[in-house]
Amino acid sequence: MQLPAPKILYDFFRSAAAYRVRIALNLKGIAVEHSYVKLRDGDHKSAQYQAMNPQGLVPTLTLEDGTHLTQSLAILDYLDSFSPAHPLTPKDAITKAKAQAFALCLAADTHPVQNLGVLERLRGVGVSEVNVTAWAKDTNVAGLNACEAMVKNTKTRFAFTDKPSIADICLVPQLFNARRWGADVSQWSRLLEIEAESNRLDAFAKAHPSKQADAF
Amino acid sequence: MQLPAPKILYDFFRSAAAYRVRIALNLKGIAVEHSYVKLRDGDHKSAQYQAMNPQGLVPTLTLEDGTHLTQSLAILDYLDSFSPAHPLTPKDAITKAKAQAFALCLAADTHPVQNLGVLERLRGVGVSEVNVTAWAKDTNVAGLNACEAMVKNTKTRFAFTDKPSIADICLVPQLFNARRWGADVSQWSRLLEIEAESNRLDAFAKAHPSKQADAF
Repeated sequence: MQLPAPKILYDFFRSAAAYRVRIALNLKGIAVEHSYVKLRDGDHKSAQYQAMNPQGLVPTLTLEDGTHLTQSLAILDYLDSFSPAHPLTPKDAITKAKAQAFALCLAADTHPVQNLGVLERLRGVGVSEVNVTAWAKDTNVAGLNACEAMVKNTKTRFAFTDKPSIADICLVPQLFNARRWGADVSQWSRLLEIEAESNRLDAFAKAHPSKQADAF
Repeated sequence: MQLPAPKILYDFFRSAAAYRVRIALNLKGIAVEHSYVKLRDGDHKSAQYQAMNPQGLVPTLTLEDGTHLTQSLAILDYLDSFSPAHPLTPKDAITKAKAQAFALCLAADTHPVQNLGVLERLRGVGVSEVNVTAWAKDTNVAGLNACEAMVKNTKTRFAFTDKPSIADICLVPQLFNARRWGADVSQWSRLLEIEAESNRLDAFAKAHPSKQADAF
């Protein structure tokens, strides 16, 4: 049975989670409409948006049958089911578990702890701007330090595989964030090697925040 | 080819992430040794532990061939590969994406934002104990509010399926946390229904923090 095709990506150029989905769609060669969610204007807090995405987060991927998918890693997995060519998840169960753990180190333990909402909450309990910036930077450094250790000894072209996987798809947006918050990325030589290899691919390069129609 | 069997779970009774893996192992009927990581004594910060788990988090699952798996959702996926009976992930791609999104709402956007490390960091930047408690509670409330919306209209015995899936495995430990932080769980009628159904199963009941050998 043919699964419903992706139709609209609710997107925000600087969202690391949306960036992951843009890379994956490009790798699969799936074209979608982009609907830009203006986080600064609070678009994500509207009842209309939250009816699609109860967390009020970006991205949402709407399918042609009207189903709304949320959470970038769940969306990536759906894309693998919809379009099995260029699998984003390694086949071998151990390699898959390692790539997933790497992806989750960033998508679960790093990105959500330094997203805009959390930083707003820190300001709300009186944390100074200097400490808010340090919080975001330190969160990125801790996550990426762990990731560097996870791939220090892999000999593959990308993090765990010779074609890009969910690990690389999570890494590239997080390094973008880490630089924004002033982290010294030069300490992660293996991660930088994987990032350079990834960004040589159009699928990654075209997904970069600076290339999006809503970039400011 | 037979995949290497799980051998040792590095566990902590009150860790929601370890609790998820205990439920999954019970559902699959896989027996492992438990090695208790005393977070209060800083066991997870030792070089020896971090060589297995570079994030210094619980759980780690060590396989019989010496491979160390980290990140609870990656471990659950490995358990599905190792022992395909009682699959933890729905087969249908849309249901699977919905169950994964629900699981990630808790495992990515809720639990890591209120774990012990984050609360310590809040204290470190001068946030008062009252505000630290409110932070943990509010984080749980936001995540579980979104989850309630995601399953409000499902008619299944568990969150998305008639047998327990990753969604239920993430829900039960998070409700345990939410109560600890003083959240009014009565607002989530559908979640409580799913929790009650889950806890009727031995696999869930025996994984409860209070039943663990390291509980205090």
